[in-house]
Amino acid sequence: MIMGANNQLTHFDESGASRMVDVGEKQITARVARATASVVMKASTWTTIRDHAIKKGDVLEVARLAGIMAAKQTSNLIPLCHQLPLDAVKIDFEVPQFDSEISSTTASLKIISTVSVTARTGVEMEALTAVSIAALTIYDMCKAIDREISIEHIELVEKSGGRSGHFIKK
Amino acid sequence: MIMGANNQLTHFDESGASRMVDVGEKQITARVARATASVVMKASTWTTIRDHAIKKGDVLEVARLAGIMAAKQTSNLIPLCHQLPLDAVKIDFEVPQFDSEISSTTASLKIISTVSVTARTGVEMEALTAVSIAALTIYDMCKAIDREISIEHIELVEKSGGRSGHFIKK
Amino acid sequence: MIMGANNQLTHFDESGASRMVDVGEKQITARVARATASVVMKASTWTTIRDHAIKKGDVLEVARLAGIMAAKQTSNLIPLCHQLPLDAVKIDFEVPQFDSEISSTTASLKIISTVSVTARTGVEMEALTAVSIAALTIYDMCKAIDREISIEHIELVEKSGGRSGHFIKK
Amino acid sequence: MIMGANNQLTHFDESGASRMVDVGEKQITARVARATASVVMKASTWTTIRDHAIKKGDVLEVARLAGIMAAKQTSNLIPLCHQLPLDAVKIDFEVPQFDSEISSTTASLKIISTVSVTARTGVEMEALTAVSIAALTIYDMCKAIDREISIEHIELVEKSGGRSGHFIKK
Amino acid sequence: MIMGANNQLTHFDESGASRMVDVGEKQITARVARATASVVMKASTWTTIRDHAIKKGDVLEVARLAGIMAAKQTSNLIPLCHQLPLDAVKIDFEVPQFDSEISSTTASLKIISTVSVTARTGVEMEALTAVSIAALTIYDMCKAIDREISIEHIELVEKSGGRSGHFIKK
Amino acid sequence: MIMGANNQLTHFDESGASRMVDVGEKQITARVARATASVVMKASTWTTIRDHAIKKGDVLEVARLAGIMAAKQTSNLIPLCHQLPLDAVKIDFEVPQFDSEISSTTASLKIISTVSVTARTGVEMEALTAVSIAALTIYDMCKAIDREISIEHIELVEKSGGRSGHFIKK
Repeated sequence: MIMGANNQLTHFDESGASRMVDVGEKQITARVARATASVVMKASTWTTIRDHAIKKGDVLEVARLAGIMAAKQTSNLIPLCHQLPLDAVKIDFEVPQFDSEISSTTASLKIISTVSVTARTGVEMEALTAVSIAALTIYDMCKAIDREISIEHIELVEKSGGRSGHFIKK
Repeated sequence: MIMGANNQLTHFDESGASRMVDVGEKQITARVARATASVVMKASTWTTIRDHAIKKGDVLEVARLAGIMAAKQTSNLIPLCHQLPLDAVKIDFEVPQFDSEISSTTASLKIISTVSVTARTGVEMEALTAVSIAALTIYDMCKAIDREISIEHIELVEKSGGRSGHFIKK
Repeated sequence: MIMGANNQLTHFDESGASRMVDVGEKQITARVARATASVVMKASTWTTIRDHAIKKGDVLEVARLAGIMAAKQTSNLIPLCHQLPLDAVKIDFEVPQFDSEISSTTASLKIISTVSVTARTGVEMEALTAVSIAALTIYDMCKAIDREISIEHIELVEKSGGRSGHFIKK
Repeated sequence: MIMGANNQLTHFDESGASRMVDVGEKQITARVARATASVVMKASTWTTIRDHAIKKGDVLEVARLAGIMAAKQTSNLIPLCHQLPLDAVKIDFEVPQFDSEISSTTASLKIISTVSVTARTGVEMEALTAVSIAALTIYDMCKAIDREISIEHIELVEKSGGRSGHFIKK
Repeated sequence: MIMGANNQLTHFDESGASRMVDVGEKQITARVARATASVVMKASTWTTIRDHAIKKGDVLEVARLAGIMAAKQTSNLIPLCHQLPLDAVKIDFEVPQFDSEISSTTASLKIISTVSVTARTGVEMEALTAVSIAALTIYDMCKAIDREISIEHIELVEKSGGRSGHFIKK
Repeated sequence: MIMGANNQLTHFDESGASRMVDVGEKQITARVARATASVVMKASTWTTIRDHAIKKGDVLEVARLAGIMAAKQTSNLIPLCHQLPLDAVKIDFEVPQFDSEISSTTASLKIISTVSVTARTGVEMEALTAVSIAALTIYDMCKAIDREISIEHIELVEKSGGRSGHFIKK
């Protein structure tokens, strides 16, 4: 396998020491990142969440707040991440649609975060942390009825601002 | 769809208010939880991680520490989670094996956490948070060379101690 | 003014040094504390909160979660407070009733927290912190429409467990 | 009751989802906020605080530091609050004056915070959090001698900088 | 150099992976640790601290509170440290004595912490963290007048409770 | 002893109240601080650390990460410290050299932090906190084999940027 110039892990210096990469010379620009995660659960778990939301407590609202608050904690969780005063955090859900999208046994709920900042470095990790903690919160609130929930496809879907240009996941 | 007695979300009371569930009457027992996550990356990303580990910085050690420290932060991240003074946290990796497990384009690294406590409630969320943050840390350290890494299959694989008995994911 | 033996501030030693009081000799018992706070706002602010809750976002649910999460942070906020792994946290609201309780200009919303623990010391501060941060969260979410909201009557209303017996505020 | 254009709760989007409001387009300006709280206690509690301060430990200094440190934690406590690197935090006390201001049974101590920042959004919540936690700290340190202390009148008294102009509470 | 059976670093497993050591089998006992640190400063810095304390602000009280609060944060700072709900934290100072102990150019202030817990593992790290952060706080408050302050001799001086017996530093 | 104009402790106001000093009028400039600490241990402790690093777990990597993460927590630990979004954090070690530098009984390991920021105030405290927590982490990981490790010479060695000019410790 041939590797090009980009096989560098910038969080290590030439001696192999981990470090917080110096962003002091980078431009302050408006940067946005979007990430997603999917929570795969039993179909009956989803209908319980959905039916509760109407009058007995909204799992998704709790997850949304957990995700927003976690975005602000990112630099305390990811060791080499910079501290960034976020401009905005938004979390949306794409819920399973009836009949068509709930298979006979499982349902898949999608979480989408959008995080923006005006800073020297991007907010990919904040967007990814937000969806991860939102998904874990859904697990926590449903684990008494469905211990086999899995969290899938945590990934960065879009990123703009900064030197590396506009990225959209194919 | 017929639901049995277990379609209750215990984090809400009868009026739909979220709450931290009362565990005061539960038994203090030794409890263990194990969770896993997979980090799916380009094969070349994996070989870069692997080659760095030898003499230029070990991504997996950073991820391991991030996961251990995150386990201790779980109750600050998951809104309705209890604060639990953990007895032990351990994080292992199953790395892609040569030829056979690295497909032509992608490699999958598995993270396994084992968390134990002597307490009134279990440590599923701590185990799940540990693998999630470890996985996100790998993303962070490799994002400059592989922005399309995805995190898959975050799930509880085993749980023991407590009233609900020994659970092993099929 | 005559003072009895109880005019001691136990958070200082005999030399006047602050300290975290030693609870090592105290009994582990089930302890509960309840606290309240009132948020006094314009009547129109209350009706906006109430009308939003139905279909446009529930201020009280956000406040409730903020209060629960803050209860877990109490020992990080109150300098000489012990760290206590809480058994349960619950937050209730007494909302203004129509006609009778919304005066021509202001409405008063009451927040009630109930916190329990099995520990060597009580959870008064956790209960008080929970209502305080819940109230501040309501302020935050409504400040764009009502900057003159005030928070009143933060107080301990009940406390049981522990050597000092059952306290109920008159 | 007729409501104008201002009955919007900006922390929710049009679908009712909570979010951290986008401040990316707002101007970076110097902003100041001042808040107050009153701690109402038995007159004998106040004289104990006052007499201790001279040579046996200063409750107000502990409260002051707690308030300053809490101002820096505001965005971790109030779910939708932005993270702001504060320029300054100051906490003052107006202590009950002798004879005239200590009534036969109660004394009222006033806490005033002044917080400033150069940022895209204001520091009302930081100022309010500072006085709230300072007040709770006084409660904590005096609760062994006066369990019926109440905290009153937590309110924003002044705010400047930013688009909405100079606000002074009447 | 011959090494005995004790050249094991227990925070690594046999494969070299870091981990939070399992304390689940250890006994819950009363444990105490004491640590010290010395802050070496210009003699004039010490006299400024001392003179301020009387009527213009007490550096040592701020440092004391910082140390107590830091003790409670230890497990968030030291990666493999267990979370321990402390029973008590106390910080004392041995101030330089006049003439005899302030040399012509420097003065040495000693900080002593005493931390206790009833738990499965000891509080050495809490005691050491407390004196370290207290010392750093003194540096912070005096750095405008003495940038060359150094912190010396951070060490564990006593430890009791637990299997390894009573340790007193010679 | 005669003191000049510089015997002011700026963290107190004229009445002796502690405060977070107002930096709103200061210039935003690139600022760097470097600090050091020495960990003095038994020679055999050092050789255990060194031998482990090769194949059984690297104490210094754990300490390095702890130091980097602690730098980001500085304003939560040092009461009157400003919150600063750091541009870079780097931690280096000067390890004892064979024969010459390991005395018959003790070895001294030096930790050097370099922290940079673009802000209104400097990062001395972040650099000092980083080396302190890195040193404490080494203590933690080695305490089972060497309880008498001491941490020495925590000091600021260089500082640039800001009004007070370039400082280098003699």
